[in-house]
Amino acid sequence: MTVSPTTVEPTTSEQLEAILAAAAAASEPLGSLLPNERAPLLRAVADALDAAADELVPLAMEESHLPEGRLRGELTRTTFQLRLFAEVLEEGSYLEATIDTADPDWGMGPRPDVRRMLVPLGPTLVYAASNFPFAFSVAGGDTASALAAGCPVIVKAHSGHPRLSARTGTIVKDALAQAGAPHGTFDVIFGSDQGVQALRDPRIKAGSFTGSIPGGRALFDIASGRPDPIPFYGELGSLNPVFVFPGAAKARPDEIATGFCGSFTLGVGQFCTKPGLLFVPVGSAIVDAVVAAARDIGPAPLLNDRIARGYEQGLRRLVEVEGVQVVLHADPVRDLAVAPTLVKTTVPNLLEHKDELLEECFGPASIIVEYADLDELTRAAEAFGGNLTATVHAEESETDVVAPLLTLLRERAGRLLWNGWPTGVSVTYAMHHGGPWPATTASIHTSVGTTAIRRFLRPVCYQQMPAALLPVPLRDENVLGIPRRVNGVLTKDDVRH
Amino acid sequence: MTVSPTTVEPTTSEQLEAILAAAAAASEPLGSLLPNERAPLLRAVADALDAAADELVPLAMEESHLPEGRLRGELTRTTFQLRLFAEVLEEGSYLEATIDTADPDWGMGPRPDVRRMLVPLGPTLVYAASNFPFAFSVAGGDTASALAAGCPVIVKAHSGHPRLSARTGTIVKDALAQAGAPHGTFDVIFGSDQGVQALRDPRIKAGSFTGSIPGGRALFDIASGRPDPIPFYGELGSLNPVFVFPGAAKARPDEIATGFCGSFTLGVGQFCTKPGLLFVPVGSAIVDAVVAAARDIGPAPLLNDRIARGYEQGLRRLVEVEGVQVVLHADPVRDLAVAPTLVKTTVPNLLEHKDELLEECFGPASIIVEYADLDELTRAAEAFGGNLTATVHAEESETDVVAPLLTLLRERAGRLLWNGWPTGVSVTYAMHHGGPWPATTASIHTSVGTTAIRRFLRPVCYQQMPAALLPVPLRDENVLGIPRRVNGVLTKDDVRH
Repeated sequence: MTVSPTTVEPTTSEQLEAILAAAAAASEPLGSLLPNERAPLLRAVADALDAAADELVPLAMEESHLPEGRLRGELTRTTFQLRLFAEVLEEGSYLEATIDTADPDWGMGPRPDVRRMLVPLGPTLVYAASNFPFAFSVAGGDTASALAAGCPVIVKAHSGHPRLSARTGTIVKDALAQAGAPHGTFDVIFGSDQGVQALRDPRIKAGSFTGSIPGGRALFDIASGRPDPIPFYGELGSLNPVFVFPGAAKARPDEIATGFCGSFTLGVGQFCTKPGLLFVPVGSAIVDAVVAAARDIGPAPLLNDRIARGYEQGLRRLVEVEGVQVVLHADPVRDLAVAPTLVKTTVPNLLEHKDELLEECFGPASIIVEYADLDELTRAAEAFGGNLTATVHAEESETDVVAPLLTLLRERAGRLLWNGWPTGVSVTYAMHHGGPWPATTASIHTSVGTTAIRRFLRPVCYQQMPAALLPVPLRDENVLGIPRRVNGVLTKDDVRH
Repeated sequence: MTVSPTTVEPTTSEQLEAILAAAAAASEPLGSLLPNERAPLLRAVADALDAAADELVPLAMEESHLPEGRLRGELTRTTFQLRLFAEVLEEGSYLEATIDTADPDWGMGPRPDVRRMLVPLGPTLVYAASNFPFAFSVAGGDTASALAAGCPVIVKAHSGHPRLSARTGTIVKDALAQAGAPHGTFDVIFGSDQGVQALRDPRIKAGSFTGSIPGGRALFDIASGRPDPIPFYGELGSLNPVFVFPGAAKARPDEIATGFCGSFTLGVGQFCTKPGLLFVPVGSAIVDAVVAAARDIGPAPLLNDRIARGYEQGLRRLVEVEGVQVVLHADPVRDLAVAPTLVKTTVPNLLEHKDELLEECFGPASIIVEYADLDELTRAAEAFGGNLTATVHAEESETDVVAPLLTLLRERAGRLLWNGWPTGVSVTYAMHHGGPWPATTASIHTSVGTTAIRRFLRPVCYQQMPAALLPVPLRDENVLGIPRRVNGVLTKDDVRH
């Protein structure tokens, strides 16, 4: 395997200009492809990445320090996702094709023939994340959904895995070219300043990001502050609280302790869905069980120096809070490697120090919070801002007491789990990976699951347009066989006059 | 009819606090109603407004100077819209209910049971517009769609029709209360500062606005700049260019001239869809025909002093541009009343003075632009930023030359019309009233049509949740009989395991 060293140099101004110009030029031809013509492009990318697994996985291991099994699984997820979006295109609902034929008797006055569908926003800038070098990086979910939508994609590579980014980028570009995608459909750029410069460029029509709250907020502010503001979909930080109800705590302390340990230490705690707080009844056997289980977990390397420094800082902040008891304190980070840390506190103390304790600590640390009664649990839940997930562990017999808490949590989280763990987000039709600020910059959208495509599409409608000038999905004959809403009713039938 | 004078006083701090607190308290009970339980609330509001027509219309006439026929039509549109959203709720697609049952063989690894639907964002602040005292004001499209979504609504009344706003607000509040809506579901506030204070309040979860570019931008910046940014849906300015192709110009100059005059002077030119530019082939008979038709249109009163002053300024800017020829110049505004103005220029001159000429002039003025050839027409189209609409007048035999222009226009407008006029936006399933910046602050959404509801909803998903804790629309049994996506397939069937 040869990686040209020049590929990880920062993108030059000339290169950036050429990439932006090519993306702008690709916008119309890529966007005008029918959905079933664009689907093969996604499959071509998936096939090329799968074929390159033995080259890419070692590179990812070297740069991210993540183990082989995890990275192979992540690559599978990545290519599965690309193929799932190909299916979404062929199924066609995502277009939201809607046809209202002319109606002289329409309730508010005669209605013209109006036909609506979604069209791509245009060139999209995707900021890759460090913690998923495949699934949230160069060919990850944002890229897959934006390409599926018909938007040219420019990925701003993460500095944590530059060579993998360059190599993945080349494979994706080559696969797209061979599959007949317009030149400019995809490229990768390197360098923070280059990323900001691209985000400010009027040819960029949308941005997406996975990363920290300060980083995402800074970019969101740039995107919103442009002379022509653009949507910016940032998936930022999340605490992912877990609430264990008394019945569950009593019935299966060990199962919950083991599950929790597996989840908060998965990927060395570097998941945006890491459960950062575990609420248990005071005196529950879960506390000792968690500590015992976590003690068996040896040190593992963090992704990079920057993450390591951030983790050390976060940990210091945590353990210095008054009333926080360290129940399992690993040694400091050594050569990037670190073992799990657990601290314990009470609800009143959590509420008193919420600024310090309700801040994400990215890495293998979590807070166990003992609650005295359900009233305390409710007050704790009310203290949370937006989260990607909130989890409840309870017995079926406890649903009555869980229900009001779930109502509170729904206001504060994008995904609500029952007797499960928030890490390991499945890519499905119903999955939602998002939530109110600061979990995301745009709570009405998801970055995982098939509906992630909606972020990169805008509606256009045609009024009284002759068939020859209508896009194929909006013509009377439903040649694509997609679901459409015709005069208010979902159907796959042709339009009959 | 009695309108208490205190109702048009600026809202006091105490009142505002009470209104915000009540909206926050109403959020959960209103949002938890099933869609078919919320539909009757919208119908109750519609019925109450219809019943009050003879009281409201004269008040609207007095404050807006618009004629009775127009205002009665607008009220019909307003109540039709409320009832249409009631139907949207009962049909249920808007929930995007999606169910993935657990699947051990899912391509990327075993999938848990995941169920997703849309839930209301929470209390929404609606800024009323001046130019549609019913349809884009207190009980207008934003209010209807936000209430339909399940969001409590606080309307910031427009200063142009305060008494109508107060009275409409009272009728809406009373109707909602009588229909059993939670206290706090709806209220109206008065005063610019009060509007800004509400927009900054953390209890407000979304904003929407119809008005000018500077006004909308200022509010968008506040919403985006909050510590917790919220979505802000502004429908701002639009030029709505009309392109007359040579065949159409030759075949039906009078029809086009008459239609254009009717459209740009409708509502005294105070529509966001007013056609601000008419492109005709050089030497076309349309120019004289337009001037002749417009000359017959007498003065009519503008909405208010502020609009009148803005119109005078805009007009001065227009006529002072070098190379712009005044072909019909009405007298200045007198007692708010003004007759139409028309100016004429060429494409090269338009492109040379695009900053002055491609700026919306709100009122009964429009620019006729003569083009030398189709190449000039293309260059003119490329000069436009985002618009709500773009219109083509052409013969069926000209579709080949229209097609490339339409491709350009689709990038720049939300609605594309063929041989029609952009004013008079129908409220339908397929209607899109939006477009790229500066037509709106959020091009992926519409403020008219049934999909306007999507602005006020966010997804939530439930993972492995017991039936007792699932919202009704996501349970196995499809008791509401709504379309749902189950394991990737649209269906109204129950879920079978």
